[in-house]
Amino acid sequence: MSDVAIVGAGTTKYGKHLDKSATDLAQLAVKEAIESAENISIEDFDGFVLSSQNPEILQKQGNSVNHFSEFLGIKAKFATRVEGACVSGSMGLITGYMAVKSGLVDLCLVVGVEKCYELPSSSDIMAAFSYVIDRDWEAALGSNAPMGFAMFATRHMSIYGTKEEQLAMVAVKNRKFASKNPKAHFQKPITIEDVLNSRPISKPLKLLDCCPVSDGASAVILTRKELAKNYTDTPVYIKGFGQYLINENVISSISDLTEFTALKIAAREAYKRAKIEPKDVDVAEVHDCFTIAEILEIEALGFCNKGEGGRFVEEGETDLGGKIPVNTGGGLLSRGHPIGATGICQAGIIFEQLRGEAPKGRAVDAEIGLTQNLGGWGTSQAVIIYSR
Amino acid sequence: MSDVAIVGAGTTKYGKHLDKSATDLAQLAVKEAIESAENISIEDFDGFVLSSQNPEILQKQGNSVNHFSEFLGIKAKFATRVEGACVSGSMGLITGYMAVKSGLVDLCLVVGVEKCYELPSSSDIMAAFSYVIDRDWEAALGSNAPMGFAMFATRHMSIYGTKEEQLAMVAVKNRKFASKNPKAHFQKPITIEDVLNSRPISKPLKLLDCCPVSDGASAVILTRKELAKNYTDTPVYIKGFGQYLINENVISSISDLTEFTALKIAAREAYKRAKIEPKDVDVAEVHDCFTIAEILEIEALGFCNKGEGGRFVEEGETDLGGKIPVNTGGGLLSRGHPIGATGICQAGIIFEQLRGEAPKGRAVDAEIGLTQNLGGWGTSQAVIIYSR
Repeated sequence: MSDVAIVGAGTTKYGKHLDKSATDLAQLAVKEAIESAENISIEDFDGFVLSSQNPEILQKQGNSVNHFSEFLGIKAKFATRVEGACVSGSMGLITGYMAVKSGLVDLCLVVGVEKCYELPSSSDIMAAFSYVIDRDWEAALGSNAPMGFAMFATRHMSIYGTKEEQLAMVAVKNRKFASKNPKAHFQKPITIEDVLNSRPISKPLKLLDCCPVSDGASAVILTRKELAKNYTDTPVYIKGFGQYLINENVISSISDLTEFTALKIAAREAYKRAKIEPKDVDVAEVHDCFTIAEILEIEALGFCNKGEGGRFVEEGETDLGGKIPVNTGGGLLSRGHPIGATGICQAGIIFEQLRGEAPKGRAVDAEIGLTQNLGGWGTSQAVIIYSR
Repeated sequence: MSDVAIVGAGTTKYGKHLDKSATDLAQLAVKEAIESAENISIEDFDGFVLSSQNPEILQKQGNSVNHFSEFLGIKAKFATRVEGACVSGSMGLITGYMAVKSGLVDLCLVVGVEKCYELPSSSDIMAAFSYVIDRDWEAALGSNAPMGFAMFATRHMSIYGTKEEQLAMVAVKNRKFASKNPKAHFQKPITIEDVLNSRPISKPLKLLDCCPVSDGASAVILTRKELAKNYTDTPVYIKGFGQYLINENVISSISDLTEFTALKIAAREAYKRAKIEPKDVDVAEVHDCFTIAEILEIEALGFCNKGEGGRFVEEGETDLGGKIPVNTGGGLLSRGHPIGATGICQAGIIFEQLRGEAPKGRAVDAEIGLTQNLGGWGTSQAVIIYSR
């Protein structure tokens, strides 16, 4: 299962882009992706997958794949928009993978985009995000993402003794990496005290335990293995992936709040397909929408044992020089989280790492990389494994 | 390219379902699909594709694939929502096809659903539909679907002499078929005079030239060819498909208003993959969102020559006993058009025809069937070819 290669990647800076539209952002990311490869122009794509979570509410615009094709100048014989809330980006990559793998297309552009700062107020943006959760059973009662992840954190702290300081260390590490990433939303280093003293959001999560709302777009270019060398001397291969969706979309139906059950299943499938074990992974980008999420993820991915995530972070095992550097691009916490773009940006960061192009201070000498992206309450999960 | 089989199909009645939610409708369609096959229970699906156009605006609900998985009881190792405006249903089928074909899943449930009559007024529903077209360049100026298709009609009438009576004949024929389809939104037969005398919408289109707004859900079950006989003695095979997206999403950028250029390309690809010619097709379900669309489609699909669609209909060639019976399920015009469901319902109608299960008055002795589904101004097209 290594028949599909990534031959190009690009991303906008993530942040508050008041002067750019969603299509502007997509154009910038696609331009950079094309320029990162050789011999590709926009007419060469015969596949186009667009990942975007909620342009209907954010831009009052549906039919996104048609809409963006006009602004990008794409004609395609396979084209679709995919949406799965925060896992939209990885769903797009997997859909693009299948289109290439099945021989349907030769050169597939996968673009993720979200333009959030277009609505009149922050509360409008928060309301748009609440569309991710069940309207009748949760959103209508005022629930939103921090509440649910705070419940995971509380439970993990109660059962395993995970500490608020350990959560804070996730944020500090990821901000340190972001300080070397000019595309990151937040780049100024922070301390554990900064996190602990930041404004309470949903106990035990403080402001700096939460990822920001970001605008941004990211793109990758997929092709068949045998065509890859036409476009770059250093392709990166998709070695395997696993996805899992579990029918626990309302938080009260989740059977265990100390783990991401769906991720354990998706990871097992991904490792099996890639014929590797967790210890073979050299660098990973995981979905740290909240600090607790990164801890649950390094456990479910098998980088450490269940319940030991907090200590694993505290001991520096997820930092440079540790067992498995995690979120060397800054993570959602600091790089930002333009929802549909995130999974695709993660792939771009691994692409950069495996090609040896990551800058000093966040470069890992890596042969195998992994991305993990989630939707909903972690009940929809995708893991993708890459190799040089 | 005949490795994927349809082994079950189900649909709700289409219409105004004030007493049912979107998830209620999906449950009914899935139940019928499961019951149309043997040896399948909901736990057996390992793939799940959801086609829905705009639940964000219609239900204030995003993350649909997670949301519906909870209400349907589905766990899946490949799951995504796809959206491409009115072609969402066929995009879902093609995505499900790829998931099965690539070996990712064994048994894939593809569900299309749209619940429109939930917004407070018809003008809210029309506003939701306007999300399909470009907000800044068209929707903000008050444009909506009938205007664009009226331009196609005007041009076709001007260049080829197509008559309003011929457009009306499309509506009359499709209503006749719908009168034998208890699942159709409108079942009472109409006459050419009824169409010509119906309320003007956008010249030359009258009310009965336009499909209604409908609620509904449809489902099909896909599996690999070698597994099909586990579930039914009479599977139907997907012989080939073609999709095409052209970057002409704003009507002023469309190069030729007398044809669906993208459909000609998609059809060519579908025929090539299925190794058949247009004359080999025994029965077709096409996307008659407006009467003119069916005429443009039978031309682009090669059932008749360009410009001759009106006469072809007038001569009865698209009726029972004609060269190619078209829209034997009643078409969008009479069966209804719950947007994300339409392409999937079309597949269900062909499934019924090829299994010899269509009732008298709309049964065709067919070996090969075809569905055609479009999005936007016909600039996103999908053609799927089926065989016994």
